[in-house]
Amino acid sequence: MKLLSYERDGAVRHGRLLDDGRIAELGDGDLGAAIVALDGDWARLPTGEGTAHDLASVRVLAPVPNPPKVLAAAANYQEHVLEGGGEPLVKERLAPRMFLKPGTSVTGPDTVIPLPDSSSQIDWEAELVVVLGRGGRDVAVADALDLVAGYAVGNDVSARSLDLGYERDAGAPGASAEWFFDWLAGKWFDGFAPFGPWLVTPDEVGDPQDLAVRLEVNGKLRQDGNTRDMIFTVAELIAHCSRLMTLQPGDLIFTGTPSGVGAATGDFLRSGDEMTVTVDGLGTLANTVR
Amino acid sequence: MKLLSYERDGAVRHGRLLDDGRIAELGDGDLGAAIVALDGDWARLPTGEGTAHDLASVRVLAPVPNPPKVLAAAANYQEHVLEGGGEPLVKERLAPRMFLKPGTSVTGPDTVIPLPDSSSQIDWEAELVVVLGRGGRDVAVADALDLVAGYAVGNDVSARSLDLGYERDAGAPGASAEWFFDWLAGKWFDGFAPFGPWLVTPDEVGDPQDLAVRLEVNGKLRQDGNTRDMIFTVAELIAHCSRLMTLQPGDLIFTGTPSGVGAATGDFLRSGDEMTVTVDGLGTLANTVR
Repeated sequence: MKLLSYERDGAVRHGRLLDDGRIAELGDGDLGAAIVALDGDWARLPTGEGTAHDLASVRVLAPVPNPPKVLAAAANYQEHVLEGGGEPLVKERLAPRMFLKPGTSVTGPDTVIPLPDSSSQIDWEAELVVVLGRGGRDVAVADALDLVAGYAVGNDVSARSLDLGYERDAGAPGASAEWFFDWLAGKWFDGFAPFGPWLVTPDEVGDPQDLAVRLEVNGKLRQDGNTRDMIFTVAELIAHCSRLMTLQPGDLIFTGTPSGVGAATGDFLRSGDEMTVTVDGLGTLANTVR
Repeated sequence: MKLLSYERDGAVRHGRLLDDGRIAELGDGDLGAAIVALDGDWARLPTGEGTAHDLASVRVLAPVPNPPKVLAAAANYQEHVLEGGGEPLVKERLAPRMFLKPGTSVTGPDTVIPLPDSSSQIDWEAELVVVLGRGGRDVAVADALDLVAGYAVGNDVSARSLDLGYERDAGAPGASAEWFFDWLAGKWFDGFAPFGPWLVTPDEVGDPQDLAVRLEVNGKLRQDGNTRDMIFTVAELIAHCSRLMTLQPGDLIFTGTPSGVGAATGDFLRSGDEMTVTVDGLGTLANTVR
């Protein structure tokens, strides 16, 4: 199933995408609320037969517009680590590297993401996004995929530099820590976590570790990876996060980006640029920056 | 005014603490929802005359149990930077260092915070917590305090080491970044952001940069600082955060801890320990770890 949240006649609703491209409306409110109510039991989803709306007649939102948490993995594809100037990571000698993005960074497909004044280095990161249907704590890797409500296409938009008017000085005490906090804050701007256009349930996705992930900027291919190259798998990331905090229905996990980001070549986004991210079987997520 | 969220007869409500120690009930739902509804206009708060409940007859919750965001400042008191082995920070040469804690880390007063199995170095951090009553974006320092709904006592509980079963190796590629991600994740465990017992409105607090902040563990004084020693003031922190993301009513900002954390002497929390944090005029927040 492909499930989505959308606005129709001024109200937020959720529905199922039909094969003919129309939407079978399933209920009021967004999909996130429905996920919480269903607690992973998709068999209880209404079928939505009888009412259908053209996709073009609604405004599609992020599948879960208000997730309880947005977790994201850094450095989860070896080629991306290398293009950033890092040494190859040895999986056996490290842990997943997670960070949080604020709820205000979430946006849906076909939105305009504002370019912050405080950075001239705004970059893309095509990613597979996991949406949790059930919560959990200390979940084993073998059980972790049971928590997944579905998958979606995402983009971990990132400011690679920040100019907030503070006088920076690479020689100042604590400057190395400063670098990390800038890196972190560069992930937080409004709209920097677009995902969608819909959530695809696991039965339809198959193996989450065998999906091509591609990103184009203005039609030019920039990223062309595959989730099989993740250092930590989806299941391992979920299990890891569940050891750090209680996971909740509706939580998102951005799973890291393959190589091909702008920072590797010094090409950053300019006003008007359109990013399109495609993941096998999950559709295409398009956003413009301005 | 002192405002609080609590559970009475199985339902969440919010009220105002009276001088006689009783609670004037103001309405259903928690204070966070009321803050959003009032949008900073406290004059519209009902007076709650007529119904009063003994404080002992309710279970006090965190003032805002489900904040949209929990922001926190690292390294915001010079003495704390020094006790951590850092060089003195020069304010003119750096920016505030912010990180996010998940909503699941929020807890109220008098709760038991579970000690995670994955760390033997759980530490305290007494802090002044700011609760926003209005949202904003790109707020000037001069206007920043206008966003504040009130202040509360907080504790940025922190795991100083993580043992998640991964083989760590200080010589492994990327080990220095690893350190930072561990530091970050050590802030995220369930219950690691206790705050309360109530929110005190700015008119009653006076100058937020002149408040003693103290923490005792089992009655022994461990931290004894004053908010006048913050490197970045409350107003500067709010303004900074508002340049990174849209701030929302109900957002929390933990403003950093003075010196005296356990890591400085190698004394960490053990099961059964009680932390009590007191901030001038804001009351005392007590939590036990187990």
